[in-house]
Amino acid sequence: MRTYLYPTSAELLEILKRPEKDSDNLENLVKEIFDDVKLNGDEALRAYSLKFDCVDLPILKVTEEEFNDAKSMVSADLKGAIQIAKNNIIKFHEAQKEAVKFIETMPGVTCWRKSVGIEKVGLYIPGGTAPLFSTVLMLGIPAVLAGCKRIVLCTPADKNGKINPAILYTAQLIGITDIYKVGGIQAIAAMTYGTESILKVYKIFGPGNQYVTAAKQFAQQLGIAIDMPAGPSELMVVSDEYSNAAFVASDLLSQAEHGEDSQVILISTSKVFVQDVERELVKQLDFLPRKEIALIALVNSAVIVVQQVEIISIINEYGPEHLILTTQFDEEIIEGVINAGSVFIGKYTPESAGDYASGTNHTLPTNGYSKQYSGVSLDSFVKKITYQKISKEGIKNIGKTIEIMAEAEGLQAHKNAVTLRLNSLS
Amino acid sequence: MRTYLYPTSAELLEILKRPEKDSDNLENLVKEIFDDVKLNGDEALRAYSLKFDCVDLPILKVTEEEFNDAKSMVSADLKGAIQIAKNNIIKFHEAQKEAVKFIETMPGVTCWRKSVGIEKVGLYIPGGTAPLFSTVLMLGIPAVLAGCKRIVLCTPADKNGKINPAILYTAQLIGITDIYKVGGIQAIAAMTYGTESILKVYKIFGPGNQYVTAAKQFAQQLGIAIDMPAGPSELMVVSDEYSNAAFVASDLLSQAEHGEDSQVILISTSKVFVQDVERELVKQLDFLPRKEIALIALVNSAVIVVQQVEIISIINEYGPEHLILTTQFDEEIIEGVINAGSVFIGKYTPESAGDYASGTNHTLPTNGYSKQYSGVSLDSFVKKITYQKISKEGIKNIGKTIEIMAEAEGLQAHKNAVTLRLNSLS
Repeated sequence: MRTYLYPTSAELLEILKRPEKDSDNLENLVKEIFDDVKLNGDEALRAYSLKFDCVDLPILKVTEEEFNDAKSMVSADLKGAIQIAKNNIIKFHEAQKEAVKFIETMPGVTCWRKSVGIEKVGLYIPGGTAPLFSTVLMLGIPAVLAGCKRIVLCTPADKNGKINPAILYTAQLIGITDIYKVGGIQAIAAMTYGTESILKVYKIFGPGNQYVTAAKQFAQQLGIAIDMPAGPSELMVVSDEYSNAAFVASDLLSQAEHGEDSQVILISTSKVFVQDVERELVKQLDFLPRKEIALIALVNSAVIVVQQVEIISIINEYGPEHLILTTQFDEEIIEGVINAGSVFIGKYTPESAGDYASGTNHTLPTNGYSKQYSGVSLDSFVKKITYQKISKEGIKNIGKTIEIMAEAEGLQAHKNAVTLRLNSLS
Repeated sequence: MRTYLYPTSAELLEILKRPEKDSDNLENLVKEIFDDVKLNGDEALRAYSLKFDCVDLPILKVTEEEFNDAKSMVSADLKGAIQIAKNNIIKFHEAQKEAVKFIETMPGVTCWRKSVGIEKVGLYIPGGTAPLFSTVLMLGIPAVLAGCKRIVLCTPADKNGKINPAILYTAQLIGITDIYKVGGIQAIAAMTYGTESILKVYKIFGPGNQYVTAAKQFAQQLGIAIDMPAGPSELMVVSDEYSNAAFVASDLLSQAEHGEDSQVILISTSKVFVQDVERELVKQLDFLPRKEIALIALVNSAVIVVQQVEIISIINEYGPEHLILTTQFDEEIIEGVINAGSVFIGKYTPESAGDYASGTNHTLPTNGYSKQYSGVSLDSFVKKITYQKISKEGIKNIGKTIEIMAEAEGLQAHKNAVTLRLNSLS
């Protein structure tokens, strides 16, 4: 990690720039696979599994037997932990439910809105080295709470045609059983168009590599909603001389081990403290199985020593996905933060708490998208319908207003719809 | 309007299909204009105004003097109507504010979320025949209520370099004064990249023609958020033998006059009633200044006579932007509706009420997008940041759970961030 001492505003802008994305043009590949899946359905999915994942899957859907096997393979400890995480995530997301409020904007004019679960949603869970059963919780729980009627989950099988048992166990635990062994671009295509096995959905959620990301963008152009644009994971930690160097180093590393493209930024008002952190990093790195990944991520990362007064503007300029505040002035800083995905406050609040079990969602806006996007929440799985009901008294109260405005916009039929009603009452 | 009597499910699917969009490939034109605006800023904007709108605009920003002129040109009646609409829209949208709730998911583990206004937003108001000051209310009011700090509004000037006074008056009334005379693709490009005059924003809102729509899609690919995908406006009316044929005809026409590509669908359980509506349509059409537009729109439209039991599934299959219910069974139908933008209930609730003044927002999902998108609301102008704070007691309660889950996902540094903290407390 490179250390910058009191950079100027212009230098800060440069330091906080995210690494340019490798904008491989994947569009042709994505289009080709989408066309194939649209035309050939399950057959195309099976062909791609054979080609990309080297596995022949006559049946794509996970069977009852596979769920049972998974259940027996997950340890009691892990089951207990998943249950606690589930409870916490439910508590936090359930509180996001919005009660219907009837608003009488004028006497006789009543308006309200109601949240309705999106009927058909698709969740994508990547394969790869880490079996992301935590993401099953983070996407599945709000989908179920929102009342989505059909929830499809796609995740690639390994070379033996198996899905990690913790993923299957977690999905079944929260009530998701439409699980299909398909990954990559073809999984997103399947949920976009539907196939013989897999339901066409209205919105697709979930993380993924560059292929999945490109496929989700393509699906969005076809009218399918997606959770949010994707980018590499990132963490900003704000510290001072009273922070705990070992804790801060452990947080930086827990972000860095995510992937080689992860970005971690340490902001501090103390030159001495950042040196302590550097020493701790070296010490802790040695014990990590994912040390190589973390080391590469740290190269993209920065330590910035700044004045106290600059902190809030630096946070908002960067708009970090994860923000840890562990200073004497956390409460003041919180008030000023407008761009961040999720904020972790104080010495005993590691980012990994939010990644797994505290209750907040871990699907968050990266790449500075916290400036305009929220993380996943119950809101992501509903749409809000508005309603209005106007009484005879109400149309008498509001009618003239509508007539004048419609006339001024040159929309005579809009006016007429009111005039006819008013005349019938006079 | 073609009338279909008791179609089968398969026939219904065919009838409810929206007209295929003219997928003109505008991407090259959009890209060209975006590149030019990125490179040449205001100079490019002025050149396009000259080329497309035949107007030379040395100064793009609306001046104090122009606001004053506009104020003097808007009639007292219209000012009064706009004020009433403003009050109602504020009441309805203010009720959408979400209070911060602190949720203690486990003892010592406290999570909450807060809505924060998107700092910089851009509103686009089309030019053309109808001066859409109502859209200024519908986008501007929630932007101001949400606490967006910078609100930019772009709208094309007419051939004399003027903006309709009602638009300027309305914008200033609600507190929006950063208004620029620029329209079309170049307006969206300006808000995407920023120019000497115009601020780069994080999210762009507003209706527009196919060029504006294509430009917003392009901006979205560049990482700018947009309100929702666009399509032609549409209305579904559900009626029975007790509905009022004149009222229903007036509602169908107020949708049809929007544009030649508007779609209106009349559903009824009564053959006799739809004949009454047809007669009323002929009668009312004659008096409309926008008769030619409405007539073309009606060609794309359908009258469908169905059984009572089919109504809810037809509504949800179509997912109308606007839905008017004016039957004996409105209350039952409402409960079953899951896909619609905004619902208008009862005889005295014309769609034009919601278009202008009842308080609900008129920026709604078209083209079946109500299946996965909400209309514009206060939510559209905020993002929600989550927070968490864990005490010493809290990390003792939740620590083990995080350790087990991190270990099972193979993320040792995530586990270590907890272990170090637990060890410091033992």
